[in-house]
Amino acid sequence: MAEKGFRISKTPVWKKLKEHAEEMRRPEYHLKHLVKQQDRLSRFSLQNIDFFYDFSRQRVTNKTMDLLFELAETADVATKYHNMVEGCKVNVTENRAALHTAARSFPGQSLMVDGVDVMHEIGSVRERIRRFTKEVHTGILRGSTGKHFRHVVIIGIGGSYLGTEFVSQALFAFADKGISLHFLSNVDSHNFETVKRQIEPEETLCIIISKSFTTVETMANAMIMKTYLKECGLDPAQHTVTVTSKGSPGDIQGECIETFHMFDYIGGRFSVTSAVGGVPLSLALGYERFERFLDGAREMDIHTKYAPVQENIPLVSALIGIWNNNFLGYQAQGIIPYASPLAKLAPHIQQLNMESNGKSVTINNVELDASSGVIIFGEPGTNAQHSFFQLAHQGHPFPIDFIGMVSPQYEQGDCKPHGVSNHQELWANLVSQATALAIGKDSKDKTRFFQGNRPSSTLLLNDLSPANIGRLLSYYEAQTVYKAFIWDINPFDQFGVELGKTIANDLRREIVTKNGNPEYRFSQTDEITRFYLETLFHGKLKDQQ
Amino acid sequence: MAEKGFRISKTPVWKKLKEHAEEMRRPEYHLKHLVKQQDRLSRFSLQNIDFFYDFSRQRVTNKTMDLLFELAETADVATKYHNMVEGCKVNVTENRAALHTAARSFPGQSLMVDGVDVMHEIGSVRERIRRFTKEVHTGILRGSTGKHFRHVVIIGIGGSYLGTEFVSQALFAFADKGISLHFLSNVDSHNFETVKRQIEPEETLCIIISKSFTTVETMANAMIMKTYLKECGLDPAQHTVTVTSKGSPGDIQGECIETFHMFDYIGGRFSVTSAVGGVPLSLALGYERFERFLDGAREMDIHTKYAPVQENIPLVSALIGIWNNNFLGYQAQGIIPYASPLAKLAPHIQQLNMESNGKSVTINNVELDASSGVIIFGEPGTNAQHSFFQLAHQGHPFPIDFIGMVSPQYEQGDCKPHGVSNHQELWANLVSQATALAIGKDSKDKTRFFQGNRPSSTLLLNDLSPANIGRLLSYYEAQTVYKAFIWDINPFDQFGVELGKTIANDLRREIVTKNGNPEYRFSQTDEITRFYLETLFHGKLKDQQ
Repeated sequence: MAEKGFRISKTPVWKKLKEHAEEMRRPEYHLKHLVKQQDRLSRFSLQNIDFFYDFSRQRVTNKTMDLLFELAETADVATKYHNMVEGCKVNVTENRAALHTAARSFPGQSLMVDGVDVMHEIGSVRERIRRFTKEVHTGILRGSTGKHFRHVVIIGIGGSYLGTEFVSQALFAFADKGISLHFLSNVDSHNFETVKRQIEPEETLCIIISKSFTTVETMANAMIMKTYLKECGLDPAQHTVTVTSKGSPGDIQGECIETFHMFDYIGGRFSVTSAVGGVPLSLALGYERFERFLDGAREMDIHTKYAPVQENIPLVSALIGIWNNNFLGYQAQGIIPYASPLAKLAPHIQQLNMESNGKSVTINNVELDASSGVIIFGEPGTNAQHSFFQLAHQGHPFPIDFIGMVSPQYEQGDCKPHGVSNHQELWANLVSQATALAIGKDSKDKTRFFQGNRPSSTLLLNDLSPANIGRLLSYYEAQTVYKAFIWDINPFDQFGVELGKTIANDLRREIVTKNGNPEYRFSQTDEITRFYLETLFHGKLKDQQ
Repeated sequence: MAEKGFRISKTPVWKKLKEHAEEMRRPEYHLKHLVKQQDRLSRFSLQNIDFFYDFSRQRVTNKTMDLLFELAETADVATKYHNMVEGCKVNVTENRAALHTAARSFPGQSLMVDGVDVMHEIGSVRERIRRFTKEVHTGILRGSTGKHFRHVVIIGIGGSYLGTEFVSQALFAFADKGISLHFLSNVDSHNFETVKRQIEPEETLCIIISKSFTTVETMANAMIMKTYLKECGLDPAQHTVTVTSKGSPGDIQGECIETFHMFDYIGGRFSVTSAVGGVPLSLALGYERFERFLDGAREMDIHTKYAPVQENIPLVSALIGIWNNNFLGYQAQGIIPYASPLAKLAPHIQQLNMESNGKSVTINNVELDASSGVIIFGEPGTNAQHSFFQLAHQGHPFPIDFIGMVSPQYEQGDCKPHGVSNHQELWANLVSQATALAIGKDSKDKTRFFQGNRPSSTLLLNDLSPANIGRLLSYYEAQTVYKAFIWDINPFDQFGVELGKTIANDLRREIVTKNGNPEYRFSQTDEITRFYLETLFHGKLKDQQ
C-alpha cells in the first residue's frame, strides 16, 4: 500500500518516463516510422471477449510499455482494483465502498459491506425491476385512467441521466416495447415544455431518480411534473416510481407505485448498471436485454480483474492515457465513434472521466503535482471529420479513441453509392483518419503539409448488441478508475461541485426574498452579483446610455 | 498590411504580453482580488444592440487590455475585417472573398466581386427562398401524390448541417408551420433508418446541400433517399430541392423542384445565413422569422465593423481568447449556455472555430510559432455542473463562456419549487458558477479547497428571439475571424481535411475491388490497413488464439 505522503510523480519510474518521453520526441520515433515496424499491430493490440483494442498508432515502443507496466506495479493498481471490487472503502473521503461492478455481478457469491450482503440487496432490486417491467409490459400496471404506459419520463440529472441516455440511444434499434423514453434533466422550463409536447399524460410513467432525493433540479422538475399530472386530472402517485436511497424523502410508500433502491456504494456516474439505468432501460428494451447488457459489463469486469497487466485492456488504455497526458503533454482526448447510435457516448464519458479524475489531491491528502483529468469531447465520425478534424490534422493535436463496429446495425440493401455500402464507406473513413493522423504528409506548400505523429487508438466491437454496449461501458469505467489508482486520487467523490451549490443557495435566498418583497435591494451582495440579480428582475437588459 | 515573413509572435507587443502574463500570475492578481476592484463590472463589460458581454471575471487588468488593444492595432485587424466585408480575396489560398456578412446585408448597396454584384445574387436567392417557402406553406407546392409537405429532410454534413441544426433547435418554440426538420448527415445506415422511421414519404421534401455536389456522404445519402422515395412509388424530382453552386452536378433543371445557389465566397461553416440555412429555416419558422434572424446578425456585423477596438464586443472577446490561449496557456474553451435550446451551440462553434483556426501556417506561408485554435466543447447548464464541472473547479482549469437569457422562452406559471421559478433557479446557478470559479475557497481540508482564479465571461441576451440568435451567431463568427486576423492565419480554408479524404478514396477503391472479386487479398496495403479491411469482410472479429 502507498505510504503517507506518497506521490507517484516522485517515483523513479515517473522520472524514467519523463526522460523516455524526451527520447520519443526524436524524429526516428515519429509514428510514420513506428507503424512500419514488423508486427506492429500484433505487438500493440489486445483482444479479449470480442473487444479489440489497437494502440499501434500510439506513440509508444516496447520500452514505453515496459516503463508503463512498471508504473502500474509501482502504483499497485492491481491491489487497488481488487480492493474496490471486494468492497473495501476505497472512497476514503466519504468512507464508502465503490461497487458498481457488483451491480452486474450475479447472486450466488456474497459480498459483505458493513454487515450487509451487497449481492443480496442488488439481486433483490434487480428482481423487482424484472417483475415491475413485466407488469408494465403486460398491462397489469397501468396509469390512473387505465391506459397502458407508453411514455416514460426520466427525471434526473448528471449521473442519474447521462448513462441511461447513452445506453438507450445506443440500443435504440432494440426498443420494441412500445415505450418511448424522455429525459427531464435541466431546471430549464424549456426542457419541461419540450417533454410536455411529446408525451400523452395518461400514458406517462415518471421515474424520479435521485440518491438523496434533494437534488435541486430533480426536485423542481418532479414537482412541476406532479402539478402538471394533477392539472390533467390524473393521480400522480399512480404515474410515478422513484429510484433513491433507502430512507430518503423519496422512499415513501403510497406516494408512488414503487421505490427502487440505490446504494451509497454506487456513485451516480457509475450507476447505469444499477436501478438508475435498470428501470428505464428495462422498460424500453425489456428486462432480458438489460441483463445481456449487464452480462457484457460483467465479462469486461472479469477480464479487468484477472488479466495480467500486459494483457489488461482497460489498464493498458489507462496507462496510455497517462502517457499522453503527463508525459507527452496532451491535455484533451477525443472520442469518435463511427456509429451514430453512440452519439451520447462522449458526453457520458466526459462526465465519468472529468468528474472522477478532475482532482488535485491524492487519497493521502497531499497535493497532486501532476495533471490529472483531461478534457473529453467528441462527436460521431464521419461528422467530426467535417467539423473539428482540421484542428486535429493541422492545428493543436489531441489523442483520439476511434470506435468501430464490424457489423452494421441495419441491413445495407443493394444501394451502393460509389460502389460501396454506407457501412463500408464509414469503415474506410475510420481507418483512413487514424492513418492520416499518424503518418502525415510532406509538402513544400505549408498549407498542404501534415505533420502527422498524432496518436490514436482504435476500439472494435462486433456490433451494437446490448452485451457489447455493456463491455464498452465497463471498459471506460475501468479505464477511469485505473487512471485514478495510478495518480493515487479518489475517483469516487466530487467535492468540486459543492462551492457553486453553496453560492447558488445564497442567491436563491436573495431571489426568494425579492419574490416576497419587490422593494428588496440585494444590498448584501457584491456589485457584480447585484447587477445580475437586478437584471433578472428587470426582465431585460437596461437601455444603453 | 503585414509584410512577407511577418509573425505576430515576433512583435514587441507580443513580448510585452508574455512578460505581463508572468506578472499576472502573482497572487495579488488572483481573480478574488480583481473582482473586488471598484467599478470592476462597468470597466470590464460592454453592451451594444441588446448584447451584454461581461469579462470582469477574466484575468485581466487595464494594463492587459491596453496591451491587447495594441496587439489588435499591430495585427491591423480593423483593416483586415474591413477588407473581408468589402469583398477582398482574404481567402488567399483559394483566391476567394469571404462574404458571409453579405448574406445578411440587404440590397440597395452593391458589392462587386469579379465583376458580379454579390448583393444582387444574394438578394435574388433570398427572394426565391421567400417565394418557395410561401408556396410550400400555402400548399401551392406539394409532393407527387398531392400531399402537403410536413417533413423536411436536410441531406448535408459539416457546414451544411451544424449551423441549421443549432438555429432550428434554438428557435424550436417558433416552429409553427407544421413542418418538422430531420437531419441526414452521417454516412451511417443508422442515420437513414432513424430518419425513415420519423417521416411520411409522401409528405417529405428533401433538401440536398453541397457546394460542389460531390461530398461523398451527402451524395450517398441523397442516392439512398432517392431510391427509397422511388420504392414508395413517388417521383423523387417532385420531392427534392438542391442548394449548391451554380453549374455543379446538382444544379440541374428537371431533376428537382428548384435549385438555390450558394457561392464560393461563403464557406460552409459560415453559411447558415445563406441559402444553406435559409431554405430549411424558412420552411420550419417562416421566411419572416428567418429575416429577423438575419437582421440580428446584420446588427452585430455593423457593430463589429464600426465599433472602435475598445468597444468592439467580438474583437474584445477574441483578444481575451488569445490572452487565455497564448499567454495564460489555456488550451480549451467551454461554452455553457444556461438555456437548453442552445444545446447545439457548442457543436456549431466547435466546427466554426476549430476548423477555421486549427492552422499552423500564416497567410504569408510561414509557420505559425504560436498555438492557434483551442478545443471547444460544452453542454447546457445546469447539466454541465453535474457532469464535468468537477474538473473546472478542482482539476485542470479552462475558460468558460457562460450564456444567459434574461427572459425565459416560456411562461413560468405559479409553480415555484424552493420558492423560485425554474428560470430563477437557472439564473442563480449561472451567476454562482462564474463566481465560484473566480473566487475559490480556502480550506485546510485539501479535498474541500478551491483554488479559484478560473476565468470566465458571461454573455447575456434578452431572450431566445430570432434576432438574438442572429446576434449570437454573428458574434461567434466575428470572434473567430478576428482571432485569425491576429494570428495572421487564413480562417477560410481547410486543407487539413484533405489527407484523410485521399486515403479514404484509396481504401474505397480496395473495397470496391473486393466487392467485385471475393478472392482479392488487399496485397497492396500495409499490415494494419489490411487487418481492418479483412475484418470488415470477415464480418466479425477473428476468434482469439
